[in-house]
Amino acid sequence: MQSGEDKLITRYFKPLATAQGALALTDDAAFFSPPSGYEVVLKTDAVVAGVHFLPDDPPDGVARKALRVNLSDLSAKGAKPAGCLMTLALPDGISESWLEGFASGLKSDCEQFGCPLYGGDTVRTPGPVSISIFAFGTLPQGSMVRRAGAKTGHRVFVTGTIGDAALGLKLLREPARRMAWNLNDADTKFLIDRYRVPRPRVALAESVRAYASAAMDISDGLVGDLGKLCEVSKVSARIEAKVLPLSSGVRQALRCEPGLIDTVATGGDDYEILCTIAPERVQNFRETAEAAGIPIAEIGEILAGEGPPLLVAADGTPLSFARASYSHF
Amino acid sequence: MQSGEDKLITRYFKPLATAQGALALTDDAAFFSPPSGYEVVLKTDAVVAGVHFLPDDPPDGVARKALRVNLSDLSAKGAKPAGCLMTLALPDGISESWLEGFASGLKSDCEQFGCPLYGGDTVRTPGPVSISIFAFGTLPQGSMVRRAGAKTGHRVFVTGTIGDAALGLKLLREPARRMAWNLNDADTKFLIDRYRVPRPRVALAESVRAYASAAMDISDGLVGDLGKLCEVSKVSARIEAKVLPLSSGVRQALRCEPGLIDTVATGGDDYEILCTIAPERVQNFRETAEAAGIPIAEIGEILAGEGPPLLVAADGTPLSFARASYSHF
Repeated sequence: MQSGEDKLITRYFKPLATAQGALALTDDAAFFSPPSGYEVVLKTDAVVAGVHFLPDDPPDGVARKALRVNLSDLSAKGAKPAGCLMTLALPDGISESWLEGFASGLKSDCEQFGCPLYGGDTVRTPGPVSISIFAFGTLPQGSMVRRAGAKTGHRVFVTGTIGDAALGLKLLREPARRMAWNLNDADTKFLIDRYRVPRPRVALAESVRAYASAAMDISDGLVGDLGKLCEVSKVSARIEAKVLPLSSGVRQALRCEPGLIDTVATGGDDYEILCTIAPERVQNFRETAEAAGIPIAEIGEILAGEGPPLLVAADGTPLSFARASYSHF
Repeated sequence: MQSGEDKLITRYFKPLATAQGALALTDDAAFFSPPSGYEVVLKTDAVVAGVHFLPDDPPDGVARKALRVNLSDLSAKGAKPAGCLMTLALPDGISESWLEGFASGLKSDCEQFGCPLYGGDTVRTPGPVSISIFAFGTLPQGSMVRRAGAKTGHRVFVTGTIGDAALGLKLLREPARRMAWNLNDADTKFLIDRYRVPRPRVALAESVRAYASAAMDISDGLVGDLGKLCEVSKVSARIEAKVLPLSSGVRQALRCEPGLIDTVATGGDDYEILCTIAPERVQNFRETAEAAGIPIAEIGEILAGEGPPLLVAADGTPLSFARASYSHF
């Protein structure tokens, strides 16, 4: 006789457990072997309703975000996704349709990214929906790209565009901003979508592993995260506002409200890869990124000395920020 | 400049990240290689204040419970703990002393069980304290002990004693029970402690791997969990109430309230290993368990046919239960 919990797992999550070692979620644990000569890269990140996503965000997007914030880290480290486990804490009264949407979003991402479900735990909570995903990937032993490793003169690169998600969140919280920024439908939708569903740069992992001296994903804001990379690499950096890769929506918003550069550079939720490349490897990095179909932009360089990175405005003056990145505490 | 979150990690959790691949929690991910010929066993379980532990339970015990419920699963599968990751969701106003107690309990268990911290995520929640631990272990490739594998005639064994935690929880919720059950101080403390801090049978893992045909840990109640094992093994079972291993506290409570046998057999939170052993391996299993210092008891046998297991009372009549095991849904 199946309990409610078993039924929930069988109905919604067993279809995601396609790997042999997951034993169709009928056991207490799963098993996994990395290919010979490879090691396992381990990452966990949690998302909480009202903190990392909005309670009325579509449930399929919530599931995608919960998984993708982890895949973004694996990619920045040069690892290929291999699988995930999840704990899902649900309040009373969660609807079947929410669960269906959630499971469907997760299934589609597990398939798209080759990251099947290996296990999980579904629990009741008197609090909000909370999802904790543990994702693991593989790479050749000893090849994980660290935050440490950036050297003076290395070029600083980012993938995609910066600041979209931070402005998307502002639009969700204060819809009147859309008028103030004079945004068209497409740009509005794009920015909100960038907040709701990150795009982990999985296709760039191999290129990062081959050519980057240091890398991380940008989750808490470009300036702050670059600061963290510089700190463990014991260097500083200078990046230029005028070459930051910006979407048309962000450009439009900045035209109407130039002070938003603060939000763009420190707001977080970008889930783009930030990495440093030695000058002699830049050409190879550019070529492999292009072959992988991932847009990259050179935004500055690593400087000698320690200290927070400098973001220089178009007129050459350095910008300063009230806080460099997001912190929960 | 460290954020509040970074400070919290540096102060409380970095000391637990003793493995090389954890990079002292200064990176976005960690790496791990199982020994050659070994594979990784993966498990995640979450605990939520008010659901899996009581909000005023001592914080060091909360941390131990969060880790140990996972180690209990690894042990039942025959795996040796290798490491863990954690997501910790904290409400506003959590005190430094709570965090200190929590980190100290976790550190002591990470050391005791050879299970260092490889990473984690610390987030704010508007809900209760929630801890999700992902633990991994290793064992020789292909040797994970499954729930499936029990055969007709195999003997059913459990470790330790059954029902302690379920009665301990009753005592915490309804302190007047102590008088009703006429419990002495030592038994009262023992039962409550068994609820608060499980004792994963890590030392028995190798013996289980060598001799068990099927195994799982008992987290949701003996009868229900044996039912799950029987279901995937496509067998049934008969166990005898008179040979269930019971602590002196449980025996005393049963003398005063015989109906508690229901709670003892289905209440959950035991975190003991339930396993089946082919008759010709029983002697070896007994000897290796004794060498490992883990008490084991033979409680019944596997029967042909499918269907829920039968628990037979001392007078030979079968007992039946309103629900066989705990389910959140």
